[in-house]
Amino acid sequence: MSLESTIKAMAKAAKRAAGDMSRCGASRKNEALSHMADLLEKSALHILEENQKDLSLAKKSGLSSAMMDRLTVKEETIRSMAQGVREIGRMPDPVGVLSGTWIRPNGLQVARMRIPLGVIGIIYESRPNVTIDAACLCLKAGNAVILRGGSEAFHSNQALAGLVSRALGDTGLPEKAVQVVSIRDREAVHVLLKQSDDIDLIIPRGGEGLIRFVVEHSKIPVLKHYKGVCHVYVDEGADLNMAEQICFNAKVQRPGVCNAMETLLVHRSEAPSFLPKMADRLQRAGVEIRGCPETCRILRQCKPATDDDWPAEYLDLILAVRIVEDMDQAIAHISIYGSNHTEAIVTADYARARRFVHEVDSSVVLVNASTRFNDGGQLGLGAEIGISTSKLHAFGPMGVNELTTTKFVVFGDGQIRNGS
Amino acid sequence: MSLESTIKAMAKAAKRAAGDMSRCGASRKNEALSHMADLLEKSALHILEENQKDLSLAKKSGLSSAMMDRLTVKEETIRSMAQGVREIGRMPDPVGVLSGTWIRPNGLQVARMRIPLGVIGIIYESRPNVTIDAACLCLKAGNAVILRGGSEAFHSNQALAGLVSRALGDTGLPEKAVQVVSIRDREAVHVLLKQSDDIDLIIPRGGEGLIRFVVEHSKIPVLKHYKGVCHVYVDEGADLNMAEQICFNAKVQRPGVCNAMETLLVHRSEAPSFLPKMADRLQRAGVEIRGCPETCRILRQCKPATDDDWPAEYLDLILAVRIVEDMDQAIAHISIYGSNHTEAIVTADYARARRFVHEVDSSVVLVNASTRFNDGGQLGLGAEIGISTSKLHAFGPMGVNELTTTKFVVFGDGQIRNGS
Repeated sequence: MSLESTIKAMAKAAKRAAGDMSRCGASRKNEALSHMADLLEKSALHILEENQKDLSLAKKSGLSSAMMDRLTVKEETIRSMAQGVREIGRMPDPVGVLSGTWIRPNGLQVARMRIPLGVIGIIYESRPNVTIDAACLCLKAGNAVILRGGSEAFHSNQALAGLVSRALGDTGLPEKAVQVVSIRDREAVHVLLKQSDDIDLIIPRGGEGLIRFVVEHSKIPVLKHYKGVCHVYVDEGADLNMAEQICFNAKVQRPGVCNAMETLLVHRSEAPSFLPKMADRLQRAGVEIRGCPETCRILRQCKPATDDDWPAEYLDLILAVRIVEDMDQAIAHISIYGSNHTEAIVTADYARARRFVHEVDSSVVLVNASTRFNDGGQLGLGAEIGISTSKLHAFGPMGVNELTTTKFVVFGDGQIRNGS
Repeated sequence: MSLESTIKAMAKAAKRAAGDMSRCGASRKNEALSHMADLLEKSALHILEENQKDLSLAKKSGLSSAMMDRLTVKEETIRSMAQGVREIGRMPDPVGVLSGTWIRPNGLQVARMRIPLGVIGIIYESRPNVTIDAACLCLKAGNAVILRGGSEAFHSNQALAGLVSRALGDTGLPEKAVQVVSIRDREAVHVLLKQSDDIDLIIPRGGEGLIRFVVEHSKIPVLKHYKGVCHVYVDEGADLNMAEQICFNAKVQRPGVCNAMETLLVHRSEAPSFLPKMADRLQRAGVEIRGCPETCRILRQCKPATDDDWPAEYLDLILAVRIVEDMDQAIAHISIYGSNHTEAIVTADYARARRFVHEVDSSVVLVNASTRFNDGGQLGLGAEIGISTSKLHAFGPMGVNELTTTKFVVFGDGQIRNGS
């Protein structure tokens, strides 16, 4: 079969499997998930061996150490994958839930019923655990899924996907509900992104380059975020001790992720007392500071920021710092340079807290808390499949519910429509 | 200015206006809507004159009588537009509403806040009232809107859009929140569909050809339905009198709209007693019946249906009729030939009613009620901007809420993230 007909056949098979998945009840899905967790633990040795193949090849091809790190599966990675799968199993099942039901004057009872989206395509890089996380979240929501991982994780992904199919087969669910595109040619992604008759949604996970490629070529709706240029604004009159804790956490706790702070905005009146102590603590943790001219006047060790720094997603121990006149200037800065991802204010002022929350156009807006809380698990949605910074369908962290939609169900006793 | 830079400038202006709209409160928006309704009534004569220009040109160019009918604005059309605008004004304001708020173990308070989508592009044909309906719904939801009507309604749309801008200006709202593309060249639509940096959503309203053109060329997410091939299934043991009322209403009350019944499926055991009486009543109302071989054996006047009839959206007094073995066959038929729009079952059986509602994959599924109820107003959503048969973001009739999204707002008192 040609590459094109192989991918088309996969998409058609996924659509058929999605029909079966949408009708199978919560207990069967959860049984499959529980079995999958067991299989993961039992097959740890096999997974580690297959991962080793990828790591050896990656080493030879000179993959960066950060990429090697993402690619590596350890025994504890497998334990944590299995635990994640069991947690997804324990979450409430979204399918069939009626959300809001009302009666019309003519007696019709109207409700919205939650239903699966259908077929979801996940296109991702490196991290093999996405194979398990993404597959399980999609299955929990009653969908079928087509996975296309990075070629550097080929053996690891094949091993993991094999377990998923086995778990489905063993528990009587359609094995085609989870399929892996094993064609390494990038043309396979191109073809996948054109199957809009059979695939309902594409979720890319990886660097900005991958995501732009997917958006550019997809004929299917895409949920994604390009990058997280997250801001913390320290307001006039803020508790400066609290501000220091929050900024340190937002920058240093895990600098390589999308909800880490990249730019700190400080109200002019607090800058002289706040910045030297904050900078000292950050610099002791290895953070390089790039400041506006006024920041550089206050701090001894400070590189001047250039125009490239304000929109930058460093994903590293680097922080841009700008002193602002007031909250309006902070909000304006965020609106120009931000990425609609995550923004926080540290303030003691009721009215400004309210205004910040209303006026900042980001998927998660926080008052007196770290940007690091933009995460499905941390916000209480359970496991997440990613974060969306575009507004259609989902804005912010996407959990199981965001992998579903609702239809209207209407119960009558013979109603017909009058008038026009 | 070139066509391209004109459209780009409109999109940028719309984005700025959307920022202002998102911050203006409910009372100012409602004041603008109320003023707009007054202006409509006061300017009736001017609107009718401008509409007359379009009608004369259309007559010369030989527009079909159905199209002429859609294009025509009468005094009562204007009254009903004004009334619709006032109704939208009286609806609850969706913006800023917190839907669901919960407390995390660490004390963080998390909520979803409803916010406008941003900039919405509406591309439509013929009916000038869409200019008012669509503009007002978008404004109510706090969005900016760019309208591109059919060239045959050019003068009517200009006159109506002029009133909308005046109403915005008079009440201190940004006039650029509603803009009309007055370039007749279809290339303008092409360029509009590429402004994905500034436009958040495209809603096409019109025939299948227009919608396919928009989907094919848009770089912006599109909410739409292609067609409505709606089914009614008359189950074994159904109340045949109720079935007759529902089928007659679904087919005849307004045959030219997307939620009219196009195919009737009848359980074999009810066909001999149900079909002759039903067909007689339909035929007296001018309905042509195209039946499966078995239907043709039962009915005296019945054209044989061909393969083209089952997926057909007639939008006319024509009905396809098929006799089925059981509900499974009815559901299978719907899944092959249906358009995920609207399906109804007439039944007296509890278990089959439940199964039909769960298993039929349509935006609105009804038990013992006419398909004609798939409508925002009829289902209680208020005015609607259209119906979506794709599942992302909205599935079914779209009201004001579907022109919004939610962001997360998080209130803390210094929380930082521990662990990984």
